[in-house]
Amino acid sequence: MTGEEMHALVERLYPLCRSITGDGVRATLGIVGELLELDVHEVPTGTQVLDWTIPKEWNIRDAYIKDPAGNRVVDFQRSNLHVVGYSVPVSATMTLAELRPHLHTLPDQPDLVPYRTSYYAETWGFCLSQNTLDGMGEGPYEVVIDSTLADGHLTYAEHVVPGRTGDEVLISCHVCHPSLANDNLAGIAVATALAGRLRDPRHTYRFLFAPGTIGAITWLARNREHTGRIRHGLTLACAGDRGALTYKRSRRGDAPIDRAMAAVLRDRPHTIVDFSPYGYDERQFCSPGFDLPVGSLTRTPYAGYPEYHTSGDHPGFVSPQAMADTLEALWSAVEVLEHDGRYQNLSPYGEPQLGRRGLYGSLGGRSDTKQAQLAMLWVLNLSDGEHSLLDVAGRSGLPFRAVAEAAAALEGAGLLKRVGEGA
Amino acid sequence: MTGEEMHALVERLYPLCRSITGDGVRATLGIVGELLELDVHEVPTGTQVLDWTIPKEWNIRDAYIKDPAGNRVVDFQRSNLHVVGYSVPVSATMTLAELRPHLHTLPDQPDLVPYRTSYYAETWGFCLSQNTLDGMGEGPYEVVIDSTLADGHLTYAEHVVPGRTGDEVLISCHVCHPSLANDNLAGIAVATALAGRLRDPRHTYRFLFAPGTIGAITWLARNREHTGRIRHGLTLACAGDRGALTYKRSRRGDAPIDRAMAAVLRDRPHTIVDFSPYGYDERQFCSPGFDLPVGSLTRTPYAGYPEYHTSGDHPGFVSPQAMADTLEALWSAVEVLEHDGRYQNLSPYGEPQLGRRGLYGSLGGRSDTKQAQLAMLWVLNLSDGEHSLLDVAGRSGLPFRAVAEAAAALEGAGLLKRVGEGA
Amino acid sequence: MTGEEMHALVERLYPLCRSITGDGVRATLGIVGELLELDVHEVPTGTQVLDWTIPKEWNIRDAYIKDPAGNRVVDFQRSNLHVVGYSVPVSATMTLAELRPHLHTLPDQPDLVPYRTSYYAETWGFCLSQNTLDGMGEGPYEVVIDSTLADGHLTYAEHVVPGRTGDEVLISCHVCHPSLANDNLAGIAVATALAGRLRDPRHTYRFLFAPGTIGAITWLARNREHTGRIRHGLTLACAGDRGALTYKRSRRGDAPIDRAMAAVLRDRPHTIVDFSPYGYDERQFCSPGFDLPVGSLTRTPYAGYPEYHTSGDHPGFVSPQAMADTLEALWSAVEVLEHDGRYQNLSPYGEPQLGRRGLYGSLGGRSDTKQAQLAMLWVLNLSDGEHSLLDVAGRSGLPFRAVAEAAAALEGAGLLKRVGEGA
Repeated sequence: MTGEEMHALVERLYPLCRSITGDGVRATLGIVGELLELDVHEVPTGTQVLDWTIPKEWNIRDAYIKDPAGNRVVDFQRSNLHVVGYSVPVSATMTLAELRPHLHTLPDQPDLVPYRTSYYAETWGFCLSQNTLDGMGEGPYEVVIDSTLADGHLTYAEHVVPGRTGDEVLISCHVCHPSLANDNLAGIAVATALAGRLRDPRHTYRFLFAPGTIGAITWLARNREHTGRIRHGLTLACAGDRGALTYKRSRRGDAPIDRAMAAVLRDRPHTIVDFSPYGYDERQFCSPGFDLPVGSLTRTPYAGYPEYHTSGDHPGFVSPQAMADTLEALWSAVEVLEHDGRYQNLSPYGEPQLGRRGLYGSLGGRSDTKQAQLAMLWVLNLSDGEHSLLDVAGRSGLPFRAVAEAAAALEGAGLLKRVGEGA
Repeated sequence: MTGEEMHALVERLYPLCRSITGDGVRATLGIVGELLELDVHEVPTGTQVLDWTIPKEWNIRDAYIKDPAGNRVVDFQRSNLHVVGYSVPVSATMTLAELRPHLHTLPDQPDLVPYRTSYYAETWGFCLSQNTLDGMGEGPYEVVIDSTLADGHLTYAEHVVPGRTGDEVLISCHVCHPSLANDNLAGIAVATALAGRLRDPRHTYRFLFAPGTIGAITWLARNREHTGRIRHGLTLACAGDRGALTYKRSRRGDAPIDRAMAAVLRDRPHTIVDFSPYGYDERQFCSPGFDLPVGSLTRTPYAGYPEYHTSGDHPGFVSPQAMADTLEALWSAVEVLEHDGRYQNLSPYGEPQLGRRGLYGSLGGRSDTKQAQLAMLWVLNLSDGEHSLLDVAGRSGLPFRAVAEAAAALEGAGLLKRVGEGA
Repeated sequence: MTGEEMHALVERLYPLCRSITGDGVRATLGIVGELLELDVHEVPTGTQVLDWTIPKEWNIRDAYIKDPAGNRVVDFQRSNLHVVGYSVPVSATMTLAELRPHLHTLPDQPDLVPYRTSYYAETWGFCLSQNTLDGMGEGPYEVVIDSTLADGHLTYAEHVVPGRTGDEVLISCHVCHPSLANDNLAGIAVATALAGRLRDPRHTYRFLFAPGTIGAITWLARNREHTGRIRHGLTLACAGDRGALTYKRSRRGDAPIDRAMAAVLRDRPHTIVDFSPYGYDERQFCSPGFDLPVGSLTRTPYAGYPEYHTSGDHPGFVSPQAMADTLEALWSAVEVLEHDGRYQNLSPYGEPQLGRRGLYGSLGGRSDTKQAQLAMLWVLNLSDGEHSLLDVAGRSGLPFRAVAEAAAALEGAGLLKRVGEGA
């Protein structure tokens, strides 16, 4: 998928009213399912998942605040952000004073509508811009939320690209946010594109499309034994804004995925931050009982931009170029995970004579030794069975790709033997 | 004790002529003993203590240099700094030329009188300002030091606040300097205030008021077996000047006290320096045979200010505010030592649902998560039995107090169990 | 040897046409042999050395390109850089167009003649300045290289200064470059000077004068068992230019030689870089099968100056002062290697009383403690049998020499005992 195709997917998913349960999630997975084969799971309300319980399913058809003149001052049909997620039904006539405790605005960003939810405390509310609120008279207002909160299911989906080994790479993105483009339709689009690009990989790649927090917890509860297969993982969010890439390390801090991402990002503008137990579903994957090697890839991180969790996070806020760039970085990470390994130099005493094997230029004295030749010298020097190619890339400062190609050339010449997995 | 009360104590102690032995030390301990219950120890001259021997006891009643007109040009009654500590008695008439080798000045600070001692080489001398010296004619001068140097005792004192465990915290301050306020009457005052503030602590707190070097060596010689109980320690000096706090690490460099002080100082202006084997009595506590986890807390450190070891270090040089600030930092360190520990998350698979336990706000989507909630997430995430609360504070960047309160709340909710001491 | 004497040696060696084999190397070793007793080794063509084979021996008497008027446009007699090293014989008449593929210039440095070789692919060529090439007409030219490439020997030499222990220090410099002063006649001169300065050392010092790459490989092949004795080593190159000293760490990165050089260079302008598997013969000594603790000392490093491998690297490019400075740094490193060791403080409980042993000033209170006294305190504090004097120098920031002198004084006073080698 090109950046433009990913952006088109974001635009198509944008209007749907997603939440942690309900038909918006199902419709979203239906659209992704046109592009990827998905296993869709439905988990009933009341199911115990780790320390949590699957909540009632929430669905909504309409909601509005109508002024005395009959105008919809706040209208769910214009934006699903206008209703607090998981609002219980309401149908009443109220003065502004009565309504006021149920209204949420952003006084410092008076043009924007905030995103709010109340999953685990039954209430209702509307989100609107401060400007709209400032223009509202005393009322009375007709206040309607036509929603249902009832036993049902939590929905999530998996797409698996089987690998030649049982070792798994987990790519997870949350699918519970309503009309917010960067958070996380861009993440869904990039994950979908990455899944479509994998061909016969060494690792098995598992893509998880699940509601945030409760969805990840549900998956973990149902796959507790399975988690031992996960060798590397990433949560993917905020993948389309114009900021530079940010990688947040796993709880372990020095897992292979942490080192792979550092190598991938080294030559681009980027930020790397240590693990912290808030943000996206890395919170769950990195809880101490699981402690999985799962980091988080975003562009501008969680809560790091003014449009975060507001109506400013619309499809115009994300760009095809940025999503393509996120995908390329992910692809480079996949290359590292696929090709990393530990090698043994089979001619470790002195340098082997590369020239007679056609691996080295014959004219001496020049100082502009080429990257490919440097990469071979580095791989030979560090291939003592303990250093991985990722180590070689890190220590040499050479791109991982050049190091992997050097290793392949040396293996082809009989000078190198693979002896183990990457570190 | 308030800053003002500590300052009043400094002013009361200031005129006394202290040295490493003698009645000045006894009088000082007598005044501190009005505030704290002290065990005063007298160790006879000639006692072998480690590699050293308790010297003769020195006492002094008067000293002066009288000019031909009968004026006391240099007068011990005006400042005890005027006599080199441990000067043997003298009574003579001398020309300036004869007297000159016994006179000590600070040519670069011509207004100030230096502080000098000669504990282990029998001699005598006077300290005076360069300006005074410059005004002195050829003489002859009447030169009198009415001192005694004779068999007696070395005096030091201990105050112990018993704890619920046998583990000890050692707070040591030197009591051998004459009229120098910051070095170390301020240290004595802050130690006294801290001792008075402790109530039923977990650790036993031992306060040592002893002459520098020989006093610490004497205590170590007499408590050699006891030193194994010392889990943490600090020497306290220069505690009242207007500079920022400075912590000097223990010889180990990563002892819990080193990490505790780093956490305490993190959010204030401060300096942390590595151990070095000169300065105050950390030199003795950190000698390689003992290698105790004892750091040093000062404001401007040893020899780091122009007034150091001069008449410029008078009560006006130290401030109530600075001493109160030193005391608060010490108290924060005590809080860390008292409350640190390793905990086990009893719900380690995924995050426990804090909301239904009343520990988490119900409205989602907001990005201004509060410190208390972050602290709970961090404690849960790192409570795997290996990380201490101090580790959590360090890794999270949160104040230790917030982390300790989060641990208490989670323990109260049955989500956390204490499993061991702090690191 | 003074800087001037080293420079005179560079000037005397400069005209000789060295290569990896041949009479130029023999003549070079003959001149060095006037100053040092050398064991000269001759290894026959065809001998297998590790992964390599000793090549044919190359010698050259004359070479030129003569224009139609009979002028030598390019003349080996003026500079041996004009012929590509290991050129096979040629005698032909050619147009410029035919000759052109055999001509090497530096278009970006049009005044300079490059240095080129072709050891392992049989060919021939000339090096000349771009300016000369630009002035050449169509020809025809008489083209002559009067060389021989035939079975013979590879020549290298060793000089050994026997030590009181079997532990060896290897100093290696390459002797295969023709008229290039900094690379590596300056290295040869400094190594010669160092060898002449050693008197009854603790370690055995082995100086290796060998052609680059193949010479080091030959020595390693013939001394494979011997390498276990090498405790420390340096390759020495580019030792005479006006740049600051550069030390390149061994592959291990924390070998004693790495720490010794860091201590030596700390108080001079310098650069320290990590190991990389290109540069000089550290490539061979640090190949993973050997992994010897051999670093590399240069001034401006390999390929780091515009004159590198050009006719600009003539005797005027190197200075007596710079070579003397390199020698002094080397000598300081020798002092570290000779005097480093681990010691045990025999009075480790508290500080021993240095004053009564005459090791400490008697007048107290002064803050300008002298370096010698600080050094004694540091040595006493860290002499627990685990820290070496080099550790003490590193942690204290004191010069190694001051630390070593303090250790000697303390050992003399019976306070210290040597218990092991340096780290």
